[in-house]
Formats: sequence, C-alpha cells, structure tokens
Amino acid sequence: MTRARFITLEGGEGVGKSTQLVALAAALRARGLDVVETREPGGSPGAEAIRQLLLQGSEDRWTAESEALLFAAARADHVARTIKPALAAGQWVISDRFIDSSVAYQGIVGHVGADAVRQLHAIGSHGFLPDRTFLLRLENRAAAERARARDTEGSDRIGGREQAFHDRIGFAFGVIANEEPERVRPIDAAGAPEAVTARLLAALEDLL
Amino acid sequence: MTRARFITLEGGEGVGKSTQLVALAAALRARGLDVVETREPGGSPGAEAIRQLLLQGSEDRWTAESEALLFAAARADHVARTIKPALAAGQWVISDRFIDSSVAYQGIVGHVGADAVRQLHAIGSHGFLPDRTFLLRLENRAAAERARARDTEGSDRIGGREQAFHDRIGFAFGVIANEEPERVRPIDAAGAPEAVTARLLAALEDLL
Repeated sequence: MTRARFITLEGGEGVGKSTQLVALAAALRARGLDVVETREPGGSPGAEAIRQLLLQGSEDRWTAESEALLFAAARADHVARTIKPALAAGQWVISDRFIDSSVAYQGIVGHVGADAVRQLHAIGSHGFLPDRTFLLRLENRAAAERARARDTEGSDRIGGREQAFHDRIGFAFGVIANEEPERVRPIDAAGAPEAVTARLLAALEDLL
Repeated sequence: MTRARFITLEGGEGVGKSTQLVALAAALRARGLDVVETREPGGSPGAEAIRQLLLQGSEDRWTAESEALLFAAARADHVARTIKPALAAGQWVISDRFIDSSVAYQGIVGHVGADAVRQLHAIGSHGFLPDRTFLLRLENRAAAERARARDTEGSDRIGGREQAFHDRIGFAFGVIANEEPERVRPIDAAGAPEAVTARLLAALEDLL
C-alpha cells in the first residue's frame, strides 16, 4: 500500500467543499484506506479554541495582521496535534481548507501579502504542505446562489461578504493554482455531486 | 512639551515590573503627562481574549510555534488598537512586557529563535519598537523569593516554572540588552521600590 497522504480542498464559499470532503473520504475508505476528516480553522482542540476567536465578533474585530497570525497559530496546532500524528499512524488526512485559504484570504485579498502569510506558515508549521490540493471552482453566480441557500453560514465574520469580495478570492486562488500546478489541481465543481467526486478521484489516481 | 513616548518594562518574574509600572506612571503624571498603563499579553479587548488562551490549560497546551504566533497576534492587536492610538493622542504609554519578552521566552529560550520572533513582529506590528525599554534585573535568588511570595501567579501556564528556566530567561534578556544598548537599559531592581523608581526616572531623563 502507498504511504498515507495529506489532501486539502480549497475554494470560495459555497463551492461544495464540505460535501466533497465527506464523499471523497467515503470513496477512499471503500478502497480500504483509513481516513481522517478535518477542517480549518480548527481540527484540534487548540485550533478550535482559536477558531472561536476568528469567527465571533464584528467584521473589524481583528486587523488583517492579527487575523493572519491567528490563522497561522491555529494551523500550527492543527498540523502538530492532528495532521502529522495521523499521517505517521498511516491514516490519510483530508482537510476542508488549509494554507492556500490563508494565502488567498489574508495574503492576496487581505493585503498582508502572500509572502508574509507563507513566512508565518514556515515559522509555525515548518512550511508543511499537502500532497495534493483540489481547488473547487464554480462560476461565481452559481457559488453565490449556493452560499445564499445555506442558512447557517453567511452570518459569521467570514461567511457574510459581498460578490466583489468573492470575485477577488476566485482570482487569488487562480494565482495560487498557477504557481504550483503539480500540487494544486483546479476541479470543476459544477454538476451532480457524484460527478464532482469522480473528478476528484481521477485527479488523485496517481497517488493511490 | 516633548512628543509622547512608548516605554516598556521587561524582566523575569518577580522583579517588580507591575509595582514599578504604577510608580513610574504616577511620577510621569506628577510632571503633567497623560499616561496609559498597559500590559502584555493583553492590553486591548482582542489581545485580552488571546491572553486567556495563552494562560489557561496545561504547560504543553501549545507548541512553542503556536505560542509565539498567539503572542504576536495579541501584540499586533495591542499595538493597533491601544498603543498607537494613545501615542497619536499625545498620551505616554507604559507596558508591562512587550516584544523583548517574546524574543526571550519564545525566541531564545523556547527554541523558536529570536529571528523568527522578530519576523512575526515585523509582519504583525510592522516591527514597532518602544522608545525605551527598562530591563529590571535582580539576583536570581531574590527574584525567585519574590515570585514564591505571590499567591496569585505561579499557578498559570507562564508563572510556575523552575529556577533553571528563570536562569535561562535572565541570560536571554542579557543578550537582548547587549544587542540594543540605546533602547534597552538594564536597571538594578534591588532595594526599596522608591529607589528603583528613581533609577528609572534618571534613565528616562533624556526623553522628558
């Protein structure tokens, strides 16, 4: 059997990351793999405590710099306490968001700068990167409709933002995908969920 | 009148920083200055929330990397929301601990590295430094006795550590003082509190 891999799902709000994480984990388990499902911000007790600070309060609760540092602190805990121990135990790990979300949201769109966000990741997590990252992509209008259809999100600090912001995030993820084409694979997230999962599995075949 | 200044008090536990902060603030107010007293970690609503995460829980709750990032996030908030606005309004600011504590505790003793901690400060707070830093120094044994005599501290994650650790912190502050002799002034913290306050004022005279 191949060694355990670390896979991340990235993309804007409403592109189906959570749904695809569950489906992809099930498909990998059907192949006999042990799979840990996790998410950011969060994924370990310390990181979940930091998540509360990040998601509660008003839009301007944190400066962009503090926000980037808090995400990096949560990620360092997530990597050290959840992801690396699982991989060492032979478990595959799939995370809903990881470093690329910070590069896009705080780095490129939030004006902290992509280089600074990557420096924080170098200090906090020794620059630890996924084996593969799937960038789920939807036409912006379709994504906005999916986001609106959900009752739960859209009310916290991160969820409730306007279309121009989502457009900038989409552009930022495009920059990231272009920089690391071997690791970061854009995936068309339109159509039936099963069809999207099939695309993910096809784009993972070389690591299975 | 001279412009408002930012002063920090640094040193190990039990050297009298809190006492001297109150006394120094009173002495500056007696000269007609408007003075803000603050402390780290904390000093602004966001930073105080992060302080709770840092001080609660077991000794190994956070990795050294997460801890350094959380301190930097709290400091970025403290600088942006409390220190810089006060200085801009003409108020002097005195803080019980600031960046040098992070360089000593997480950087030099905590193995994250002084350079990495200063990079976090560069990203989080644009490298903002005090106009003057007083490094309160006591013979280690005297400091340990003062720390033991206090009921309240010594029970949280940061306060309750053994003598060898305090010795390493003392050494780290020595390194820092040697690197920036103009900003960082070692002050003998032995003797009557009033005598220590007089030493602080004498070492601040050129900025008054």
